[in-house]
Amino acid sequence: MANAALSAGPRPGDGYVQSFARGLDVIRSFSAAAPRQTLTDVAARSGLTRAGARRILLTLQALGYVRSDGRHYALTPRILDLGFAYLSSMPIWNLAEPVMERLVDQVKESCSAAVLDGTDIVYVLRVPTRKIMSIGLGVGSRLPAACTSMGRVLLAGLPDTEVEALLRAAPPAAHTRHTLTDPEAVLAKVRQARRQGWCLVNQELEEGLVSLAAPIVNRAGETVAALNISGQANRTPPRQMQELMLPALLAAAADISKRLLA
Amino acid sequence: MANAALSAGPRPGDGYVQSFARGLDVIRSFSAAAPRQTLTDVAARSGLTRAGARRILLTLQALGYVRSDGRHYALTPRILDLGFAYLSSMPIWNLAEPVMERLVDQVKESCSAAVLDGTDIVYVLRVPTRKIMSIGLGVGSRLPAACTSMGRVLLAGLPDTEVEALLRAAPPAAHTRHTLTDPEAVLAKVRQARRQGWCLVNQELEEGLVSLAAPIVNRAGETVAALNISGQANRTPPRQMQELMLPALLAAAADISKRLLA
Repeated sequence: MANAALSAGPRPGDGYVQSFARGLDVIRSFSAAAPRQTLTDVAARSGLTRAGARRILLTLQALGYVRSDGRHYALTPRILDLGFAYLSSMPIWNLAEPVMERLVDQVKESCSAAVLDGTDIVYVLRVPTRKIMSIGLGVGSRLPAACTSMGRVLLAGLPDTEVEALLRAAPPAAHTRHTLTDPEAVLAKVRQARRQGWCLVNQELEEGLVSLAAPIVNRAGETVAALNISGQANRTPPRQMQELMLPALLAAAADISKRLLA
Repeated sequence: MANAALSAGPRPGDGYVQSFARGLDVIRSFSAAAPRQTLTDVAARSGLTRAGARRILLTLQALGYVRSDGRHYALTPRILDLGFAYLSSMPIWNLAEPVMERLVDQVKESCSAAVLDGTDIVYVLRVPTRKIMSIGLGVGSRLPAACTSMGRVLLAGLPDTEVEALLRAAPPAAHTRHTLTDPEAVLAKVRQARRQGWCLVNQELEEGLVSLAAPIVNRAGETVAALNISGQANRTPPRQMQELMLPALLAAAADISKRLLA
């Protein structure tokens, strides 16, 4: 869906939109590095005046999204309801998990599902394997689309003009000595993913990490998510990963796509 | 942390607080039953006028939290950033997962962690086992505290007066023929959990489901989360579950509590 109705609505400059945006920014100012913040911390991290930050914090507190001992503020678990509203509204969310669990049993590597959000992919489901060195990416984690297998499969679901615009908006950054940073080279990989219906990325995000992805497609033929398996290059060389695991991954992605139609 | 600063702040009746609350209510109106909504749907589900719902939807769209084809509205994955801010701000979040994975390996049953939010528990971490009939409760799911093992362990971390107030606010509802619905009986179980440092709940939430929980305690001695193992009564009778799995669960909860101190 495009932002067709946007022109008729409020603009980022509107007072109302701005205050709502600031409220959400205050929520996002909490993190592992800042789990409990003073008013001063919140104001600094979200670029607000102390008075503005105070008004928003007290609003969030009145609504039960923030708690305070008078000096420090922290988020409450009620915040999760918001993300849960999104996850449970995804058609694939309930359908995909059992299929992903069977895939993990089969290939003995972790399996994840992600969707595209601008130039990022966002993890929406993850079934970890029990191995040491399993990759710690929980639901809600973001990675750049350009250098990940799920990202390239998701970009392959867009027209080339949109992919080019996204690559211009966020030029691919180097994460390892293998990362493709030339937009043309990334676009070529995206086109290859589109032609072959899957994608392998070899250590472009992290040294040693190899990842294989396939698209999940709805009844309108749109790519709505990507499914991946990731493993360690020193344990399973990329060629072997492709031979051993690609058929199972493609079957799982096709199975989930078929369930979406039902 | 109590709501000490609340009295000095905006009240739910304030215009600003109300509009912010409505914005969050609109986010929460999306669900598995309503993944894509028209303006009319959203207005009906969140109790707003069409004009009010439209203003909020267009605000959320301008901020990238909602997308639209002009007629239908849906949430975007950006919503997950809000929940992610909460999860990553929890001290136990990174510490607990490896300990929980070892516990699942040991006992071959699923393990979860939850926190208290009013009269509910909210799941913040889950490590499923690969068994058929694993219980499908993802992060962000809510269950009533009164009839769950994690709930009783979390209530045990509060003074009796607070527990009594919570039980008055949401009188325990019957979920199975085993559910304790008398507040006094639930309070007795909470006190028992406090004395013994763990809790077993036998089929009070769901027929066949047995669950064992222990508290995770921070350096101030406060119960910050609960850890549980759940299994099937017909596979592992409650007595056997207690004998076989309680020592491992208590060790895992103590391990996570110790890491919180470091």
